Amino acid sequence: MKVGEKHYRSLWADESQGVVHIIDQARLPHVFETATIASAEVMADAIRGMRVRGAPLIGVAAAYGIALAVSRDPSDESISKASVLLRATRPTAVNLAWAIGRMRERLAPLKVSERLVTAWNEAQAIADEDVALNEGIGKHGLVLLEREYAARKRPINVLTHCNAGWIATVDWGTVTAPIFMAHDRGLPVHVWVDETRPRNQGLLTAWELRGHGVPHTLVTDNAGGHLMQRGMVDLVLVGADRVTRRGDVCNKIGTYLKALAARANNVPFYAAVPTPTIDWGIEDALTEIPIEERPEDEVRIVRGLDAEDRFSEVTIVPSGTPVANPAFDVTPAGLVTGIITEKGIARANEKELLGFWPRSKQNKAYLT
Amino acid sequence: MKVGEKHYRSLWADESQGVVHIIDQARLPHVFETATIASAEVMADAIRGMRVRGAPLIGVAAAYGIALAVSRDPSDESISKASVLLRATRPTAVNLAWAIGRMRERLAPLKVSERLVTAWNEAQAIADEDVALNEGIGKHGLVLLEREYAARKRPINVLTHCNAGWIATVDWGTVTAPIFMAHDRGLPVHVWVDETRPRNQGLLTAWELRGHGVPHTLVTDNAGGHLMQRGMVDLVLVGADRVTRRGDVCNKIGTYLKALAARANNVPFYAAVPTPTIDWGIEDALTEIPIEERPEDEVRIVRGLDAEDRFSEVTIVPSGTPVANPAFDVTPAGLVTGIITEKGIARANEKELLGFWPRSKQNKAYLT
Repeated sequence: MKVGEKHYRSLWADESQGVVHIIDQARLPHVFETATIASAEVMADAIRGMRVRGAPLIGVAAAYGIALAVSRDPSDESISKASVLLRATRPTAVNLAWAIGRMRERLAPLKVSERLVTAWNEAQAIADEDVALNEGIGKHGLVLLEREYAARKRPINVLTHCNAGWIATVDWGTVTAPIFMAHDRGLPVHVWVDETRPRNQGLLTAWELRGHGVPHTLVTDNAGGHLMQRGMVDLVLVGADRVTRRGDVCNKIGTYLKALAARANNVPFYAAVPTPTIDWGIEDALTEIPIEERPEDEVRIVRGLDAEDRFSEVTIVPSGTPVANPAFDVTPAGLVTGIITEKGIARANEKELLGFWPRSKQNKAYLT
Repeated sequence: MKVGEKHYRSLWADESQGVVHIIDQARLPHVFETATIASAEVMADAIRGMRVRGAPLIGVAAAYGIALAVSRDPSDESISKASVLLRATRPTAVNLAWAIGRMRERLAPLKVSERLVTAWNEAQAIADEDVALNEGIGKHGLVLLEREYAARKRPINVLTHCNAGWIATVDWGTVTAPIFMAHDRGLPVHVWVDETRPRNQGLLTAWELRGHGVPHTLVTDNAGGHLMQRGMVDLVLVGADRVTRRGDVCNKIGTYLKALAARANNVPFYAAVPTPTIDWGIEDALTEIPIEERPEDEVRIVRGLDAEDRFSEVTIVPSGTPVANPAFDVTPAGLVTGIITEKGIARANEKELLGFWPRSKQNKAYLT
């Protein structure tokens, strides 16, 4: 999407030079930088250091990591070594393992001399497919925003939590795709952006919206209930790390509180996800998904710019104070108005969601 | 309560010097400091800058602000000017208006020459009454905790939001009084402390609990819904800036979200307030109480300790990102299990609350 006047993807290849360019997210939203990556090792460092981040994007980044390894040395040994290295960067990331597996399956049958072009093409295909998924979500979500606008004839207020934006994907984003599309068509939309403690990913969402010129306002995580109570939110739109087959939404901690406020105030609450995020093997998120407890320092330490505009951090919680940091929560399907996917919008129940289940997978677990 | 080995009040007078001492809360929990205040103007600055903060304490502080004005100039004009100045510091705060009104009523009939001693005595009486109020809340709230413990026979988990602790009052605190009393009697209690962005007053609550040895855990504001959903909270206990005659609770932004989660998960939700915090002239908080919009910098700038343990701050929100900072929200009476006061516990409805209405005030508006 746009950063000022220029259109970017989060990651793009230059095959002629054998390098990959990334938006370096380490110092966003304060400093916008790009970086050039010329080896699988450096790509692994970038993923590990969260210079590229977001479940969809790190899958694509890992695929390009394999292409970079092939550029240097297309042997089985080289590909295998790069796979292990890249896989270890974020051991719980499903997309990353999936993308590496796909690259290896594609390259293994080929002669060593034929691998170079295929490696770059396959990584590009994975990237392009990610863009298409998000574009599909955007088209379906746009209909919701158009409907709200037709009913209200005034700017539509969307509230979102965390960052399900374009820099967590290759382009568009899940939550942001319909918003960007609406904005580009002249439909007036304003976004309330939750800060999203402890990691403040809302700041990334605000940066994305600003880059593309979409009106928005950052608020603390505490403010959303008040805004909904006062009629200042027309639609809550969040991403998800996992959606179960009946429509429970597992997403960043705090999402559940916004869903409760939406229900109490008759505000529609939607999750926007590509269908691969739907876990067909799980029904009840509360009992079947373990909640990751992340490091205390995410709560204790806050990053920003100091008085001299240097990237800096402060400790806000004294070391003697115990801290807990559950990273996700579950919004039960009963609080979810619908799930927006690239295949359409379903109500949050098993019957409607199963319409999106790939026929090829219906006789086995989707994720193994 | 104790800070180290020494017992403090949050504010204490030195009439012989014509000054008031405060615990300066600006750099807590990182730095413990006291400050000396010698004029109504400096007291107004301290209230506005939240160096003294908390609904009950700022009422006492404002009363002493009037005493400081009288010390300098006991004329009607001087008292009137100080009243306006002090009243404007925190427009949502009912205690502040009440305390100023009481001081004025007491001083107005007196000759100018007789006002000095009375002003200091009246402010001291307001401070001492505040301590007694909180002690009374503690005794009634303790019964609730004892009842929970009797039912569960395991440590009781209380969740609180913001700081309604002893440094928000002159001593004891509203929310913390029953907790301190329970702990002192050997009843096992653990407190989940919400961070309370943007100003992170939860860190003050954690500091108080730590000082008194009460087990507690700090969590982000996003975590409370998840904790309640998992059965990890037995009771939500919050303070309030105002309670209406039917039991609507106006408190720090984010309280409403916790009340929604409590209701959804069958967790009792209580507000602990002295009866002067009940605004008998107001029924519907949503339509009748204006919500204070506080400065953007409270969201943009985070304070803590830098790598060298120096008190420092970082800017987390770029200047180009719009910010909104509503400071309070309304929890409708329907979500409130009860109101704990120094006179007893009432269900959140007009009939029960009116039992606490001072007879002397029942024929006129309580606040004018």
